[in-house]
Amino acid sequence: MKIQELVAKNIFKQSGYIASEKTCIIKMDANENPFTIQEPLKKVLRKKMLEVDLNRYPAAGSPDLRKRYAKYFGVKENMIMLGNGSDELIQILCMTLKGRIKGVLVPVPTFSMYKIIAVNTGNRVVEVPLDKKFDLDVKAVTDRIKNDFPALIFLSSPNSPTGNLFSRAKIEIIIKKTPGVVVIDEAYGTFSGQSLISLLKRYDNVIFLKTLSKLGMASIRIGFLIGNPNIIAQLDKVRLPYNINSLSQIAAGFFLDYEEEFSKQIKEIIQRREELYTGLKQIKWIKTYSSRANFIFFSCAFDSNHIYSRLLAKGIAVKNLSILPLIPNCMRITVGTKKENEALIKALKSITPKQGA
Amino acid sequence: MKIQELVAKNIFKQSGYIASEKTCIIKMDANENPFTIQEPLKKVLRKKMLEVDLNRYPAAGSPDLRKRYAKYFGVKENMIMLGNGSDELIQILCMTLKGRIKGVLVPVPTFSMYKIIAVNTGNRVVEVPLDKKFDLDVKAVTDRIKNDFPALIFLSSPNSPTGNLFSRAKIEIIIKKTPGVVVIDEAYGTFSGQSLISLLKRYDNVIFLKTLSKLGMASIRIGFLIGNPNIIAQLDKVRLPYNINSLSQIAAGFFLDYEEEFSKQIKEIIQRREELYTGLKQIKWIKTYSSRANFIFFSCAFDSNHIYSRLLAKGIAVKNLSILPLIPNCMRITVGTKKENEALIKALKSITPKQGA
Repeated sequence: MKIQELVAKNIFKQSGYIASEKTCIIKMDANENPFTIQEPLKKVLRKKMLEVDLNRYPAAGSPDLRKRYAKYFGVKENMIMLGNGSDELIQILCMTLKGRIKGVLVPVPTFSMYKIIAVNTGNRVVEVPLDKKFDLDVKAVTDRIKNDFPALIFLSSPNSPTGNLFSRAKIEIIIKKTPGVVVIDEAYGTFSGQSLISLLKRYDNVIFLKTLSKLGMASIRIGFLIGNPNIIAQLDKVRLPYNINSLSQIAAGFFLDYEEEFSKQIKEIIQRREELYTGLKQIKWIKTYSSRANFIFFSCAFDSNHIYSRLLAKGIAVKNLSILPLIPNCMRITVGTKKENEALIKALKSITPKQGA
Repeated sequence: MKIQELVAKNIFKQSGYIASEKTCIIKMDANENPFTIQEPLKKVLRKKMLEVDLNRYPAAGSPDLRKRYAKYFGVKENMIMLGNGSDELIQILCMTLKGRIKGVLVPVPTFSMYKIIAVNTGNRVVEVPLDKKFDLDVKAVTDRIKNDFPALIFLSSPNSPTGNLFSRAKIEIIIKKTPGVVVIDEAYGTFSGQSLISLLKRYDNVIFLKTLSKLGMASIRIGFLIGNPNIIAQLDKVRLPYNINSLSQIAAGFFLDYEEEFSKQIKEIIQRREELYTGLKQIKWIKTYSSRANFIFFSCAFDSNHIYSRLLAKGIAVKNLSILPLIPNCMRITVGTKKENEALIKALKSITPKQGA
């Protein structure tokens, strides 16, 4: 057996996503909510879990959750589909929307899984750099649309790792000009205080992604795809019938039951983000960008690999973006608890350019 | 936006998998284990679930489970990969093994998801009918191999829906003759009392699929892919990094902790299967086939749609295979508890050809 003859060329060539698995006292690398649920809520969830018949298949297509979350997002039931994390929904989009019109366009830098999944599903990928303020370069995007007719354009807004929202006006121009679908990934939307979901009323070629992963439920892998029912009907053929396990279905229901509790945590994270931003601004060798997400993006005046290892040695894990071509020596730090943020600032202040040289 | 220009042709044309969602008192349609765990085991699992930090991402690649299940299956750690059910693993295989050598071959009738997933991932599918005893028609398969060079051949053994094991000698001929990979899906292997996993020592182009779904854990969606580490390294690039949620990881660990308890249930199911087989043989209008799985396959002398609705009216859900072209008026019945099997036999005996006409 010759393995290189069996494996799709694009997959054989690429290295795949490397998930960081740092066991740190302070985890600020994965854009998780730093707060976990406590008693008496934990007890409620535990009780709900007991209702699951472990021996039975989960409800195919998660019908109860579709109904409840449709209401939550203010859309009709046939406009929503659940995924095993947004990753699975991105994969379904890339597998399904490969007709006469095909290919994927992404602004860069952005969430790396768009490209990885697009390549793995055999798609051509066009990357268009963001402008200097990390907003969309509409002219560059629309020029590429004219040549490449992409079936999918992924826009993460707020964008990871840069933390900014894309302007609504620019997004609308792109929606109007593309022959395909614009996917607006609002994974971090809750931290921005705004959503463009009302665009669904004006355009039939917009799809939204949402997730529970940043809101306190990363463990259970629940993502949402929201949009045109005719597109969803096609995507739903590709969705594996039992893609959401029973335990995660229960937990996603629990999230809605106690959404107020989670909202309080989100409010606190937003407050902490502003404190962290102020703290980071005081450090001379850091250039901080304001954020609408649950993380802060900054560039360092010296080698970020050095800073990354120094923080790790102090038990703090952050996302080192040194390898991104357009933004050298950058980092992305998830907003932590008050204590965690203070520990981070203290640690950063103890690192000097001298040590990095 | 013209949806038919955006959607991949093969997907647009097909209708997708229809999951049955019958709420019945007696569920004999989905090949689940009819027994569910009881106290004090339930308490143990509940306690373990509490250890999960709901706000944190699951361990990427399920490293602890890979280690433990590698030991369980008697293979090395780099020879195993976990999936969100075997469905996801079939999808990863179909996405990855699309090189110069490509395409999927399946004997029919068999598990319908092989074809659905193969089509959704843009693969050409070759179907080769089984012989009259539902065993592999080696000549027909090898003839197609010569012409079609499939990258993947899926063999479910025991086969669903027919219940029989494929002969080892025939499988070995196919393994030797194919330029691609033979995937032996042993989802029902535990009920057959045998496994061909030792073939991994002799051939580098064999992959095994296993699952917890038939063994009492369908709810949590855990499947295993076992085989050549060089193939797994490629498949692992396509696997979504956080494909197994934390709660299912905990539950899959729990399964191993209490594997003896589940084994007792399996033994009982095998015993009940033989009783059910004897019961079905007594019904004149049924032709029963002996089974090595946790279900029994039979054909009816008259319209199976009628029998299906009659059973449903009595609160019993079974799998009606009336639509399968090669085996008209057939059914697949999952082995239930003693009481459930008796209720089924009683119900079947009350149905007469007269009523069906």
